[in-house]
Amino acid sequence: MSFNKLASIIALCFYGCLYSMAQQALWSAADVVSPQVNPDNTVTFRLKAPKAVKVQLLGDFLPNRKIDTPMGTMEIPGIADLTEKDEGIWEFTTPEPLAPEFYCYSFVVDGLKINDPSNVHKLRDTGTVNDVFIIKGEGAGDLYSVNDVPHGTVSKVWYNSEKLGLQRRMSVYTPPGYENSSRRYPVLYLLHGMGGDENAWLEIGCASQILDNLIASGKVKPMIVVFPNGNAALESAPGAGSNGLIRPTTALPKTMTGEYEAAFPEIVNFIDKNYRTIKTKKSRAIAGLSMGGFHSLHISKYYPDMFDYIGLFSAAIKHYEKITHPVYDDVEGKLAIQMAKSPALYWIAIGKTDFLYTANVEFRKILDNNHYNYIYRESEGGHNWRNWRMYLSEFLPMLF
Amino acid sequence: MSFNKLASIIALCFYGCLYSMAQQALWSAADVVSPQVNPDNTVTFRLKAPKAVKVQLLGDFLPNRKIDTPMGTMEIPGIADLTEKDEGIWEFTTPEPLAPEFYCYSFVVDGLKINDPSNVHKLRDTGTVNDVFIIKGEGAGDLYSVNDVPHGTVSKVWYNSEKLGLQRRMSVYTPPGYENSSRRYPVLYLLHGMGGDENAWLEIGCASQILDNLIASGKVKPMIVVFPNGNAALESAPGAGSNGLIRPTTALPKTMTGEYEAAFPEIVNFIDKNYRTIKTKKSRAIAGLSMGGFHSLHISKYYPDMFDYIGLFSAAIKHYEKITHPVYDDVEGKLAIQMAKSPALYWIAIGKTDFLYTANVEFRKILDNNHYNYIYRESEGGHNWRNWRMYLSEFLPMLF
Repeated sequence: MSFNKLASIIALCFYGCLYSMAQQALWSAADVVSPQVNPDNTVTFRLKAPKAVKVQLLGDFLPNRKIDTPMGTMEIPGIADLTEKDEGIWEFTTPEPLAPEFYCYSFVVDGLKINDPSNVHKLRDTGTVNDVFIIKGEGAGDLYSVNDVPHGTVSKVWYNSEKLGLQRRMSVYTPPGYENSSRRYPVLYLLHGMGGDENAWLEIGCASQILDNLIASGKVKPMIVVFPNGNAALESAPGAGSNGLIRPTTALPKTMTGEYEAAFPEIVNFIDKNYRTIKTKKSRAIAGLSMGGFHSLHISKYYPDMFDYIGLFSAAIKHYEKITHPVYDDVEGKLAIQMAKSPALYWIAIGKTDFLYTANVEFRKILDNNHYNYIYRESEGGHNWRNWRMYLSEFLPMLF
Repeated sequence: MSFNKLASIIALCFYGCLYSMAQQALWSAADVVSPQVNPDNTVTFRLKAPKAVKVQLLGDFLPNRKIDTPMGTMEIPGIADLTEKDEGIWEFTTPEPLAPEFYCYSFVVDGLKINDPSNVHKLRDTGTVNDVFIIKGEGAGDLYSVNDVPHGTVSKVWYNSEKLGLQRRMSVYTPPGYENSSRRYPVLYLLHGMGGDENAWLEIGCASQILDNLIASGKVKPMIVVFPNGNAALESAPGAGSNGLIRPTTALPKTMTGEYEAAFPEIVNFIDKNYRTIKTKKSRAIAGLSMGGFHSLHISKYYPDMFDYIGLFSAAIKHYEKITHPVYDDVEGKLAIQMAKSPALYWIAIGKTDFLYTANVEFRKILDNNHYNYIYRESEGGHNWRNWRMYLSEFLPMLF
């Protein structure tokens, strides 16, 4: 058959939704490749925009910019100009090779922020969709990649929360071999930040890749990892619930009100009932980033016999407005009870430029003044996924 | 605390990846809402692009255009112009209310096709990422929505294919209540089209919503549904395998070569081993769209004792080039053997304007000439997801 005929068939098989894109993809000679990871690990970005006046690249791999905010100076990702080449194709290549890591970017065309039309790999990070790519290689690059190692199963599972009055969705990772054994496993409950959901750690957090790779290397014990949704007013991530394809919003009525924390045993009971878990404190861990660190702090002290391993990643330590709930009463008294039971691990990690740094210093003062045992990990950088992926990779080997 | 301080905290909690977008989302007064489903089910699309000269909307809800291709005249989705309003905000409202359905669209800004920056709900359909929205309401709208009904579990599971020499990923839907029972279930194997993967039916195909809703209504028997990956050279969907964040390609070496079809029992055996299935022909169905219909046709006749229910949705009936494999030898002889065993259902569905319509007419002639029993469903429209979602909704109630 002719190429055109084959192309037509492929086009139609391929592009059931908006076929006209198929033509462009198949028959446009000027189709560009972007991003292109070059052999030396520099990366070239391209956009075909013949009528654009200015095309810029926004990326978390570019030198940070500092901006003033009501909370003081903050670092934000850098921006770079693309240069127009022939045929209206704009291009930018990073001046230096990029270190192995998982990166995010987007374009700005004459002030309009857009995703890269040539990259199908986009991830929603709360209210923003970013294009992503990975530089493979030793360390983060290999750790965050899907490699040819045994893979765990990732499931989207619904449970009924009587206390919150909702069917709610969670993600569950079961380790390689779970299906073929009768073995019981320890469980880590891994919590997201404000505006996140049950998908966040598994998408931009690369959690299943990290788990598969560290379990395969023998550095991490096979475990079940549960990713609940920490927005107690919501069923699920945006678009996965009966509220339809909603816009993520900053108006989150029940994220730090105590209700989620108080109802947490429903999640543990559901997992213990439906999965082959070891149902003891010694075999349970809880950790979270930002708001999820706040949740981990409060849940673990409110239920001091439930979790033996606690991880606070860039944790939001305290409320910035008065919220009354039994979960939040007498924090120091509850901490005293929790610490008297000598948890196997209480791990606190934060970046030097994190806006929550000072709050964490104050929290550690309380722990120090009371001679409580904990491990402190201070990293470079701020409140971002690069740190949270790294913290998870360092936290997992210490469990169980 | 001040709003600004709260906003800063939320911004940082929210936008770990590219914080600068948070500023825009939180502090830009001119942030637009798009798409906006209006009370009368007209839909308004907006884009803020002050420097744009022409902004267009490409959508599968606009009147189709006809184009000439090497295969003859084809229908492609329509296009409409947005009108510039104040402050460089472009807008288009559909002249008529849209019928309840799941829709795809994108913008074209001065010839550059982009996704809607205001819509986080984007789905990859093979090589293209489209923005999506749903019009709820009787029929398709409700059927394709997540409703407050019991939900099944959707898992991403890896199996080892000895015949194909790869670890390969599949999706598995287990019905509501599966975890809490010891009951065994029948199994549907649901196959994707060329360029699709184990995610396609669950994403743009709305398969888990359709299953949850029809099972809840009592119209469909609870069943396990398995979504394998039909590209025998690949481990998984793009980005989920050890080949990294690859671009989807039209160069698919092992999609219609017989290898996938011949190796299919590995998938059935894996499912029968790891799930509570009813391991009989009477409790197994296989169906697929386009290339998946081709696979269903050939797998079901090559293994005539495996599947009692067969569904061909807009099926690619034949090769357009000579490919030799035992699976494809003596098609009519194998069909005779399969049909002599009187399958419980042989269902063929296609749209009147589908480019594969004639091939299906020719295939039905073979069935008719031999007086084989089958049910034929002819719909309006062509080779698209709107038909495939509808075919699935009609096929499921006939099973088991």
